[in-house]
Amino acid sequence: MPDLDELKSIVGEDFLLTDPDRMESYRLDWSKGAGAGMPLAVARPGTVTEVQGVVRWASEHRIAIVPRGAGSGLSGGSLAVDGAITLSLDRMRSVSIDPATRVAVVEPGALNAEVKRAAREHQLHYPPDPSSYEICSIGGNLATNAGGLCCVKYGVTTDYVLGLDVVLADGTLVRLGGQTIKDVAGLSLLKLFVGSEGTLGIIVGATLRLIPAPAPAATLVASFPTVQAAANAVVSLGSRLRPSLVEFMDNYAINAVEDFREMGLDRSAGALLVVQCDSPGDARAAEMLVVEQICTTAGASEVFSTTDPDEGEMFLAARRAALPALERKGSMLLEDVGVPVPRLPALLDRIGAISAEHGLPIPVVAHAGDGNTHPNVIYDPAQPGALERAERAFAEVMQAAIELGGTITGEHGVGRLKKSALADQLGPEVTALTRRIKSALDPDGLLNPGAIL
Amino acid sequence: MPDLDELKSIVGEDFLLTDPDRMESYRLDWSKGAGAGMPLAVARPGTVTEVQGVVRWASEHRIAIVPRGAGSGLSGGSLAVDGAITLSLDRMRSVSIDPATRVAVVEPGALNAEVKRAAREHQLHYPPDPSSYEICSIGGNLATNAGGLCCVKYGVTTDYVLGLDVVLADGTLVRLGGQTIKDVAGLSLLKLFVGSEGTLGIIVGATLRLIPAPAPAATLVASFPTVQAAANAVVSLGSRLRPSLVEFMDNYAINAVEDFREMGLDRSAGALLVVQCDSPGDARAAEMLVVEQICTTAGASEVFSTTDPDEGEMFLAARRAALPALERKGSMLLEDVGVPVPRLPALLDRIGAISAEHGLPIPVVAHAGDGNTHPNVIYDPAQPGALERAERAFAEVMQAAIELGGTITGEHGVGRLKKSALADQLGPEVTALTRRIKSALDPDGLLNPGAIL
Repeated sequence: MPDLDELKSIVGEDFLLTDPDRMESYRLDWSKGAGAGMPLAVARPGTVTEVQGVVRWASEHRIAIVPRGAGSGLSGGSLAVDGAITLSLDRMRSVSIDPATRVAVVEPGALNAEVKRAAREHQLHYPPDPSSYEICSIGGNLATNAGGLCCVKYGVTTDYVLGLDVVLADGTLVRLGGQTIKDVAGLSLLKLFVGSEGTLGIIVGATLRLIPAPAPAATLVASFPTVQAAANAVVSLGSRLRPSLVEFMDNYAINAVEDFREMGLDRSAGALLVVQCDSPGDARAAEMLVVEQICTTAGASEVFSTTDPDEGEMFLAARRAALPALERKGSMLLEDVGVPVPRLPALLDRIGAISAEHGLPIPVVAHAGDGNTHPNVIYDPAQPGALERAERAFAEVMQAAIELGGTITGEHGVGRLKKSALADQLGPEVTALTRRIKSALDPDGLLNPGAIL
Repeated sequence: MPDLDELKSIVGEDFLLTDPDRMESYRLDWSKGAGAGMPLAVARPGTVTEVQGVVRWASEHRIAIVPRGAGSGLSGGSLAVDGAITLSLDRMRSVSIDPATRVAVVEPGALNAEVKRAAREHQLHYPPDPSSYEICSIGGNLATNAGGLCCVKYGVTTDYVLGLDVVLADGTLVRLGGQTIKDVAGLSLLKLFVGSEGTLGIIVGATLRLIPAPAPAATLVASFPTVQAAANAVVSLGSRLRPSLVEFMDNYAINAVEDFREMGLDRSAGALLVVQCDSPGDARAAEMLVVEQICTTAGASEVFSTTDPDEGEMFLAARRAALPALERKGSMLLEDVGVPVPRLPALLDRIGAISAEHGLPIPVVAHAGDGNTHPNVIYDPAQPGALERAERAFAEVMQAAIELGGTITGEHGVGRLKKSALADQLGPEVTALTRRIKSALDPDGLLNPGAIL
């Protein structure tokens, strides 16, 4: 057992936790922690220099490091590993806005919502918006290349990263990119670290691009008799215009939300779409007419639209409540598969068949506009064999996405929960290439071992 | 000297050139070829399998490969290397559009303009638009992460790449990404290859994201008494709205264009801005009013705006004519430096001082909206010492950009012309990291040796 006093002197006694009780809240994440280990210690550095110190110490002692943001990850990317240091970035959370350059300079522990709020004070906007934006950290967003609801028009995290400070496996600090919008000097190393889930380096700072605040969105809610009718509407929408949000909930999810908190949703609907358009001026109204027409043509039984932002936010609140609402229905395995948009109807078909085959509900909520779905396998842990059946269904949903030319994860990351399926998607050549990059940057395999690979 | 018969049998006798006269047109690029070598042979494979064959052959014989698109690069990235195989992708140029998925599946030799035209037939749009879009290949665009005029609103090449087929240094084919919009399964290897200038692998196919065709743009042209007044207008524009184009020309460039082809530009203007807005509906007119007001406030002496697309295209033609027009003024070293937008006035100041110091004109044209400028050092090669002075000025412009927190290349790439300045921008840590990635993917250094590093 290595001497932790040195580590204590790096981050300060108060910020090196070794007591199991105090470490407990740093062991798990929102994936519910299947297989979380017991860390040697939890280090909570307050500066980049301290992060470098911790990493150098770990490198010298050949001890692994699990970097950790707010712990809201859904793929187990920050689950503690036995005998490793959990390096929590929760104390490093400064945010400063440069309105002239239109960038936010952030530390990784800052919450996504804090960045958005700081930008808003300057009439600027940071688009990426995971459903968990109130509680997830920007460092975690960068580590997973997080998406959200607005991606369909505004893109994902990587599209907003101009600069990145990264501590490498040996403690070296590299500063990649900067504040310049167009920069092709050298390899795109910056983009390689975004989405690398802490396996190549530890992100300790970022410069994020901000945009002028978009016009307020109008919102439309449409009820469809079947999942297929709603999916067909989504495909048509994408070929005609660029809505700023296209969210989907199926009948099971609608009812779970209504059970959780009465919101006046149509419990009899096969599926529901929430669509927003935020084009400026009169274009928004013209687009909303097209959206309404597409939904009606696809067979919507009821269409309601509003330009009132609060009313629109209410429908979004229903969509955002889906995850906690579904969690009350039993234990749950949360999926994140995506397909090219025209194959969304086929994917939903396959999910329906898998659900029927295993006798387990698999309600689907989706960022439908870019084909990113969250099917959730619900099971009763008290029932013998239920977990095994749920795990088989979970694996089959990923397999279906791969067969439809899609992905096992659209925005949550591979983490520890999906790594067994990754090779099926990537194939042996890309897996080998991934290992070569990993070995080049982390030859001793000390950075977040067990994640991705 | 290795036996070329095997290579001939891979690509076919007609497509392996060894005669110096026939190879000549594959030796240079638009950087004018300072230091271009004589290749062992030029291979023009027609299929991915043939590319793999050439690369395997080269790998076995330890012979370097210089990949090459349309040869319109400005940084010498595809200049021939003595004794190497120049691998030209000019025969692989298929383009197919999938309108439902809104993607273009392309081979690297297809021209940017061909991709745009094919997309337009389906009312879709491929945004990236280097000034050379009529003659540059999409493979070259991918290799350099090319920009263009529309980046200020629509982003650069990497933002539109969903899938990439790459032949690695040992001939292995890897397929990265696919057609799914959101995909975080594994490392962002795809983004690493974009902009790698053929040093990590050879891009043999790509799936590009298309968007619904935007509304037609309105165009405004404003003359300013000074470069600084125009630069200040650019900074204000960026903080108020998102124009789809913000182009800049200084007095020297304006007059060069007028000398080249009379276009009715104001020869007395210190600088000219061309601004376009393409928001849909009545928002466009509202934005154009804001643009006009900003230009007037910044001191524009004359402002003209039009909603007629042909008239707008005429002003853009003047901007696009700047490069050929300037080339008639003498020999030229073409720059591509960028800075954060608020530092544009300072950069233009510094360029003016460097020009005065060396007694050489350095006219500037710029994609001003994202701080990406093309200062062009003009010299008379007949004058003793002129080239040396031009080269010093060229290096000082890059140094100025670095000191202002910017980049030595915003969109052209490092190639062979700028590699000596790259380490000044990246610093030793990032340079070392770049070498580690290069070694991991191309251990024998056979892919485009001398480019970037």
